[in-house]
Amino acid sequence: MTTVRPTEASAAHQPADRGRLMVHGADRPGIVSAVSGLLTEQGANIISLDQHSTDHEGGRFFQRTEFHLPDLTVRRRDLEQALDETLQPLGMTWTLTEAQQRKRVAIFASKMDHCLLDLLWRERRGELAMTTTMVVDNHPDLAEEVRGFGVPYFHVPVPKGDKSEAEQRQIDLVKDNVDFVILARYMQILSSDFLENVGVPVINIHHSFLPAFMGAGPYFKAKERGVKLIGATAHYVTEDLDEGPIIEQDVARVTHADTVDDLTRTGADVERRVLARAVAWHCEDRVFRDGNSTVVFA
Amino acid sequence: MTTVRPTEASAAHQPADRGRLMVHGADRPGIVSAVSGLLTEQGANIISLDQHSTDHEGGRFFQRTEFHLPDLTVRRRDLEQALDETLQPLGMTWTLTEAQQRKRVAIFASKMDHCLLDLLWRERRGELAMTTTMVVDNHPDLAEEVRGFGVPYFHVPVPKGDKSEAEQRQIDLVKDNVDFVILARYMQILSSDFLENVGVPVINIHHSFLPAFMGAGPYFKAKERGVKLIGATAHYVTEDLDEGPIIEQDVARVTHADTVDDLTRTGADVERRVLARAVAWHCEDRVFRDGNSTVVFA
Amino acid sequence: MTTVRPTEASAAHQPADRGRLMVHGADRPGIVSAVSGLLTEQGANIISLDQHSTDHEGGRFFQRTEFHLPDLTVRRRDLEQALDETLQPLGMTWTLTEAQQRKRVAIFASKMDHCLLDLLWRERRGELAMTTTMVVDNHPDLAEEVRGFGVPYFHVPVPKGDKSEAEQRQIDLVKDNVDFVILARYMQILSSDFLENVGVPVINIHHSFLPAFMGAGPYFKAKERGVKLIGATAHYVTEDLDEGPIIEQDVARVTHADTVDDLTRTGADVERRVLARAVAWHCEDRVFRDGNSTVVFA
Amino acid sequence: MTTVRPTEASAAHQPADRGRLMVHGADRPGIVSAVSGLLTEQGANIISLDQHSTDHEGGRFFQRTEFHLPDLTVRRRDLEQALDETLQPLGMTWTLTEAQQRKRVAIFASKMDHCLLDLLWRERRGELAMTTTMVVDNHPDLAEEVRGFGVPYFHVPVPKGDKSEAEQRQIDLVKDNVDFVILARYMQILSSDFLENVGVPVINIHHSFLPAFMGAGPYFKAKERGVKLIGATAHYVTEDLDEGPIIEQDVARVTHADTVDDLTRTGADVERRVLARAVAWHCEDRVFRDGNSTVVFA
Repeated sequence: MTTVRPTEASAAHQPADRGRLMVHGADRPGIVSAVSGLLTEQGANIISLDQHSTDHEGGRFFQRTEFHLPDLTVRRRDLEQALDETLQPLGMTWTLTEAQQRKRVAIFASKMDHCLLDLLWRERRGELAMTTTMVVDNHPDLAEEVRGFGVPYFHVPVPKGDKSEAEQRQIDLVKDNVDFVILARYMQILSSDFLENVGVPVINIHHSFLPAFMGAGPYFKAKERGVKLIGATAHYVTEDLDEGPIIEQDVARVTHADTVDDLTRTGADVERRVLARAVAWHCEDRVFRDGNSTVVFA
Repeated sequence: MTTVRPTEASAAHQPADRGRLMVHGADRPGIVSAVSGLLTEQGANIISLDQHSTDHEGGRFFQRTEFHLPDLTVRRRDLEQALDETLQPLGMTWTLTEAQQRKRVAIFASKMDHCLLDLLWRERRGELAMTTTMVVDNHPDLAEEVRGFGVPYFHVPVPKGDKSEAEQRQIDLVKDNVDFVILARYMQILSSDFLENVGVPVINIHHSFLPAFMGAGPYFKAKERGVKLIGATAHYVTEDLDEGPIIEQDVARVTHADTVDDLTRTGADVERRVLARAVAWHCEDRVFRDGNSTVVFA
Repeated sequence: MTTVRPTEASAAHQPADRGRLMVHGADRPGIVSAVSGLLTEQGANIISLDQHSTDHEGGRFFQRTEFHLPDLTVRRRDLEQALDETLQPLGMTWTLTEAQQRKRVAIFASKMDHCLLDLLWRERRGELAMTTTMVVDNHPDLAEEVRGFGVPYFHVPVPKGDKSEAEQRQIDLVKDNVDFVILARYMQILSSDFLENVGVPVINIHHSFLPAFMGAGPYFKAKERGVKLIGATAHYVTEDLDEGPIIEQDVARVTHADTVDDLTRTGADVERRVLARAVAWHCEDRVFRDGNSTVVFA
Repeated sequence: MTTVRPTEASAAHQPADRGRLMVHGADRPGIVSAVSGLLTEQGANIISLDQHSTDHEGGRFFQRTEFHLPDLTVRRRDLEQALDETLQPLGMTWTLTEAQQRKRVAIFASKMDHCLLDLLWRERRGELAMTTTMVVDNHPDLAEEVRGFGVPYFHVPVPKGDKSEAEQRQIDLVKDNVDFVILARYMQILSSDFLENVGVPVINIHHSFLPAFMGAGPYFKAKERGVKLIGATAHYVTEDLDEGPIIEQDVARVTHADTVDDLTRTGADVERRVLARAVAWHCEDRVFRDGNSTVVFA
């Protein structure tokens, strides 16, 4: 029942001179004060500030600050220097982004269109602060549909056996060209080599159940057990398949009258909803990774 | 959290020889027995049976029976005769449909694409047992998009003052050509003349709040009151605007951080979900009207 | 978001002369017709009928019929004889219950009061068609509270090692005295001997996550993974711990700001809600077991 | 699906030396920096900071800061003086509370026990950072139950006509003795005189529907319209009955099979859940009133 709240204004028209500062590190007194003092000193007006500490004694500290600073692009270098001077002594890591600079993304797909099309459609509607620079698909079926959105489409077949060549082609397409990758029901396992080489966050969506059903045919197994809820989980991809930090989850109700096909269809609906939220939040720098967990300032 | 469960098999490929019998009237003993006896006698196998009585003394009775009957199309006339003979003496009204005969629909739209495209996309995916025979729009913007789905698109401008001519054009397009009409965020009020002339059910979707906010700018008013839930209601259209029998409703959670734009966007998401469910159920004859209420065998 | 709909009238005052007939077996044509014909013939008026078939060719058939039959208690024997004559040749198994006969239940608890008190309180309010004849607890803490509800309380300590003696005491208390057992956060594993000897259905509630977290400290593990939903599952107990047929499930949303304690507390809230629904449905004979799955006519 | 997250540690055992600073006023640059700077200067460690601005140009600013300050009680006066010096020139209003000082509450009830008992039970469990100092009831039925929780119970009958005397008795009981009042399904309308005289926030819970149904018998009207969702709203009481700023809302799903009694019962379940959340948030100073809206840092 959570909503996609893509941005303060509109994901489509991000305001100029709007910056986002992400700070994290070992918690210690004075960080909020130091960061907000620095921003005020630099002439920035804080628009929103979210802060979380896992434990105020020996915990990890996370802060997202959205601010308005006239001529941000011009004055960015000065700001960055001030941030280094203030935050390095405090042992803090920081990232600065401009809301106007939409994130570039590559979407990987595999025949199933529900997540892919929903993302392209939401992007066109202005709900997602991103620019899809390419779709990479190991099946050719969706080419026309994707290109209808004005998005380049690359068909990269992935053979059953050695996938290294296909992965190399994918890396060649994506590397340095995108800020993150979305696996929109991409049905191939990516090697840890790929994850290392691609060098940007990868977001995946998959079905989820209570309890989990391992291996093949999860909807069939769920049916066999009489589950009443079908869920989906969006998470960052790590080396352990389907095991990375969770960004968002949701469920839908099902009954004994639902066939395995119905469960699958319901699952698809939840998947596109959950993935859209996770992507919206990632695009607006609302998600911190914290080990195998996340801090989401939604 | 309810799911769209479009059909027993798949909305795309409705099984042959599958019939649906809808029976309703004043409740009295023996109806279930009479109907099921008749079907068995005719060689039909009951696949599913839903029954509801508003009150078993003096209430209203509703029954939906799905059955398999070899050569249904050929034997339909005999079956209908038997139904008349059995059910007329019991004072029951009945309707018989064949699952294979997909309902024909006209979708009315007004610029906003979220409900319209979601329906077309779900139909293409095989989630809705219907055939969209036309889209009627009072703005020309969505023509290309709709025709990309292979669906005829008619632009019927509606002037501010006298709408009777525009409504006549709409009637000319729709009359006898469709089994029902969907108002997919169609922003014009239809006259009672239109509703009478069109002669088929009309399904509408609109935003809903707890409490309701009347008149213009409901999202603005909701924001002013601090509402935490944004909802949508799909209903059959009656002469009282936004007041007909409710088919389906759902909500999404919002917070103080959501702007009026965010509320509107969240509302759009709930609208398309709720409308899709209501349409799926209508297409499969799962909805009875009961005065200003409904009985939904979802 | 599902509701507890305890009964047609009120769980507290079940109408007289109201019967429930549960029929199940291998699906074959003519069952609905045979059952409804028989009931009509016997002078019963069908109030509600729910039917489900897992597959209309070679599937399993389930039917729940609620009916009104004047002088049901007196005429019950005749009805049972007629049911045998009609349903045995069709290979159907059936159960007949009278709505007025509330189910007797023993609730097993272990210190934690949230599920136990919620059940007792709902029973007193008339939301559950059951009579709690005893509470069996392996801790003595809740004695006064339980007896305040007028319910007998038995403290049966369970030692760490050999539990057979304690289980024997539990069996002595429960055997032939109750129609089912609820494990309301009872923290001891019951042996398969116990399950066999007790001879009545046992309903359990436990926390659930997407994905599942095995072993000790599940809330801690959930926190480590950043889960956004905390769930609960009510199910019939089988020999495989926490693995029986699911009756009901639900979830609640959590965030990174929730501590492990918060997750636990949220879990408790979901648990009592889910358990109350499952128990209400069981009490009204709305749940069929189907192998390791269920058919719930909620 | 939202959770009650009563406190950072446990509502039962609020940590010592934990302060909460609530600041609000017309938005202007530099507030976050000024507040956090001041706290750091005073030796406080910021544990969590939530901030919201309705519009960063000409909007209203809200900030909740939770901090740790050794010997808070002793040093409170110095801190308050510093706050005055810093925040008054900025035109900000502020409140300082100590987490250890549980809020004192009077609960008003009227026969129906579901909300009242749920609150008392959650308080006893340690889920609510409050102390119920009295229950005021215009019916005598719940006396024993309430006193079983160790809470004083006052029966103040309210006659049909002139209620001023009864309200005076209520004021005499409550005035200066409590920090807020909860109307736990209190079925009498409070006069604006009462609200003025009582001088503390009053939280109410009532049923809500989409759309709203005005006047008497709302569940009956909801049934007549075929609503599919039953909701509840917790809000601060203002002179306009049932119209104050909303703190929390939720819904539950219902169907045509639910009777008016079922709807009422389902409504009761949602009411107690929603009220418990609203009260928990109020107790931890998570709710700002903003005109007829709220800012809830849940």
